[in-house]
Amino acid sequence: MSELQRLVFEPDDERYLAELGEYVAIPSVSRDADRATMQRAAEWIAARIDFADPQLVETGGHPAVVGSWLGRPGAPTVLVYGHYDVQPTGDLAEWVTPPFEMTRHTDQATGEDRVRGRGATDDKGPTYLAVETCRQFLAQEGSLPLNLRFLFEGEEEIGSPHLASYVRAHPETLAADLVISADGAMWRPDEPSLSVASKGLLALDLEVTGANRDLHSGRYGGTVANPLHALAAIVASFHDADGSVVVDGFRDGMVAPTEGELAEIDAVRFDEEDYRADLDVPALVGESGLSTLARLWTQPTLEVNGISGGGAYTVIPRVAAAHVTCRLVPGQDPAAVAAAIRRHVEARTPPGVRVRLTPEDGAVPAYTIAAEHPANRAARAALEVVYPGEEVLLARIGGTLPATTLFEDVLGAKTLFFSFAYADEWHHAPNEFMRVRRLREGMRAWEVLLRLLADGEHRLGAAHE
Amino acid sequence: MSELQRLVFEPDDERYLAELGEYVAIPSVSRDADRATMQRAAEWIAARIDFADPQLVETGGHPAVVGSWLGRPGAPTVLVYGHYDVQPTGDLAEWVTPPFEMTRHTDQATGEDRVRGRGATDDKGPTYLAVETCRQFLAQEGSLPLNLRFLFEGEEEIGSPHLASYVRAHPETLAADLVISADGAMWRPDEPSLSVASKGLLALDLEVTGANRDLHSGRYGGTVANPLHALAAIVASFHDADGSVVVDGFRDGMVAPTEGELAEIDAVRFDEEDYRADLDVPALVGESGLSTLARLWTQPTLEVNGISGGGAYTVIPRVAAAHVTCRLVPGQDPAAVAAAIRRHVEARTPPGVRVRLTPEDGAVPAYTIAAEHPANRAARAALEVVYPGEEVLLARIGGTLPATTLFEDVLGAKTLFFSFAYADEWHHAPNEFMRVRRLREGMRAWEVLLRLLADGEHRLGAAHE
Repeated sequence: MSELQRLVFEPDDERYLAELGEYVAIPSVSRDADRATMQRAAEWIAARIDFADPQLVETGGHPAVVGSWLGRPGAPTVLVYGHYDVQPTGDLAEWVTPPFEMTRHTDQATGEDRVRGRGATDDKGPTYLAVETCRQFLAQEGSLPLNLRFLFEGEEEIGSPHLASYVRAHPETLAADLVISADGAMWRPDEPSLSVASKGLLALDLEVTGANRDLHSGRYGGTVANPLHALAAIVASFHDADGSVVVDGFRDGMVAPTEGELAEIDAVRFDEEDYRADLDVPALVGESGLSTLARLWTQPTLEVNGISGGGAYTVIPRVAAAHVTCRLVPGQDPAAVAAAIRRHVEARTPPGVRVRLTPEDGAVPAYTIAAEHPANRAARAALEVVYPGEEVLLARIGGTLPATTLFEDVLGAKTLFFSFAYADEWHHAPNEFMRVRRLREGMRAWEVLLRLLADGEHRLGAAHE
Repeated sequence: MSELQRLVFEPDDERYLAELGEYVAIPSVSRDADRATMQRAAEWIAARIDFADPQLVETGGHPAVVGSWLGRPGAPTVLVYGHYDVQPTGDLAEWVTPPFEMTRHTDQATGEDRVRGRGATDDKGPTYLAVETCRQFLAQEGSLPLNLRFLFEGEEEIGSPHLASYVRAHPETLAADLVISADGAMWRPDEPSLSVASKGLLALDLEVTGANRDLHSGRYGGTVANPLHALAAIVASFHDADGSVVVDGFRDGMVAPTEGELAEIDAVRFDEEDYRADLDVPALVGESGLSTLARLWTQPTLEVNGISGGGAYTVIPRVAAAHVTCRLVPGQDPAAVAAAIRRHVEARTPPGVRVRLTPEDGAVPAYTIAAEHPANRAARAALEVVYPGEEVLLARIGGTLPATTLFEDVLGAKTLFFSFAYADEWHHAPNEFMRVRRLREGMRAWEVLLRLLADGEHRLGAAHE
């Protein structure tokens, strides 16, 4: 990379943080927000790609933002994917500062410069820096090194229920040789990494109904089933004592990790005691016979994310409900897993209650991209430029990027994960944060990646030995 | 009862309902309300006993209302007990009309004239009619037939945590030959009944904590215990498949019902299919070998009233919590039951989580009053006057009246249950209601009861064969 080809980024982060702060201030919680709020967030990111003829498009749910800059005829085309929606805040009392007022602070334990706010790292920060890189190419060089398209959706955090129909209906708007996802997360803050897999996702709502009204626990206790007891019995039956899922058929079709893959994972530096201590749990828990990292990267899960029913008074509630999500690994079919859970629940419904199990729309299978895929090779080279001397780790994403399988099906394009979020930044939890220095590191990395994909040995579509 | 001695009550219910409506409109939810709201409710009922020098007294919690009219030297003294606090509303969306706007309506199914509102039947209506009876004695006869004291507390629905210390500190303010509780409920709307027992109550909070923060279910799933799974396993372990409590030591000391008592209960008209259909449950559930009514009246229960934790998104929550209450029968010691539950929970806490079990203050044992106690005999006679030709049923209260044991200990007085609420009036649930005609029936019954306790064969303290 010659010096002439190097973009100049801001000497300090003031402008970046002011802009990102504006974006975080829009409470675009896809599960709860009103249409106007989601629209504002969509318009904000659309304005940042004003060079690409941005459009807000109807999807049947929250709008998506698309755009394209095709000023390099003959050059490869990349589709940049991200999302402008965020997770619910969780308990507001647990936030050190308000979730939608992005706050810069120095972390006491590490001395790191951070910004805290819902969406800072998932996915507003990583999306912002990708777009800013493109803006600087145009400002400083008058051109981008290759053709770019953009797709920012507003429903990633609720499983992208309307993305598939939109993408299937508009393949020409999105056509590309490669998708680069600004969503996802690097494995650890102290070493660069690329991801070669992400888990699938299946969400279900489980509702147990007893009597037609809340009952006084004294006047009815001992005569009717308590929906909370029934729900607890069903939930308790999903796992055995060591935490393995014991739903018949749950693992059907699953491609078990090979000995070689497990050995590779076991070779990754991973301190179980540090991991345990960071979470402050008395012990790590999960299926026996596998290391913690192997469980995290290769095993499917069934987690009950929420239970609600009744309250702290003397009632037998009418209804109890649980939200359940499964993270799936390659080979598992979401529909078959849902059916297996339905059989399990029906067989374990105790007398005296009625149970309703409702799979949510938008289930997605797991996704993989080979470590030696040309895009991963280019990305590794880019990270080696930004983090000289550091080994680039090949990691897996326990989370789910629903769009990846879709892009492969419809566009015939693999998706490269290229996010500058880190897995420890309290995604989906109170006090989500992003490390400030990743803004400039991410911009530099995107710059180099786009240059590499455009030209030379890593050019997209070029033959590789 | 000569006609000259008969009070004249209103020819219609307009005034009663207007006054009761004012009282119901004060949202005196003891678990949640602010001090000013509770004070307003206390002042409202205090104003209704303006003939008895009413006082709002500090208890350390919500104030109590006390008063006394001692204008019959030499006559017996009765303490009238009730409560001005109410349960939380539960889900507001389930209320047909707002809970704190008392609404008169005709029930479609029965044609009954009813009033709906939180507290209408538990315990504002039954307290109101007792007090109104006293007011009419004074208005129409210038005197009450015996001496009366009053105690209306504001914490009954949260287990009366401060009542004991108040009563123990002020026995002279409350001294009486008998307590009559305007709280409780008759067994069925279509036959008069008296209660000979009420269950005790023990409440506990169970909290299961995992990691120090909410975790992304993909980025951490399969490596740490999920507090909701752990809580479900603990809750599921409390009962066996037929609903019996299987906590070791839970039944220690319990006085099992005799064959004779069970035969008496089985002789009570009780249609299990009607009961099931009214609740719209697929089946009635509970310990095998006992009828539904025998379970309800003689068996202790352990009910999980509420579970909360996480939400409907992809999280492994930091904490999960359950509220548990036990209804106790004679012989069970609340402290011993709490200890048994603690041992059970500790033995079943899975690895990877921490559990905290916190018994609430104010646990009370079960209470009994003999069917042939003089007060029950007088009450039966009063009900026979108001409901001529109807058999007075001896029933039990599945609910808890925490004050009864206390009054026996401190004042040496038994408590007669004399409420004109009925057990089917959706106590503690949305759409709580009271039957309008019970207002006048209750007033007449209180009139007769007070006359009988004052004089003649049922006079309190008189020898009985």
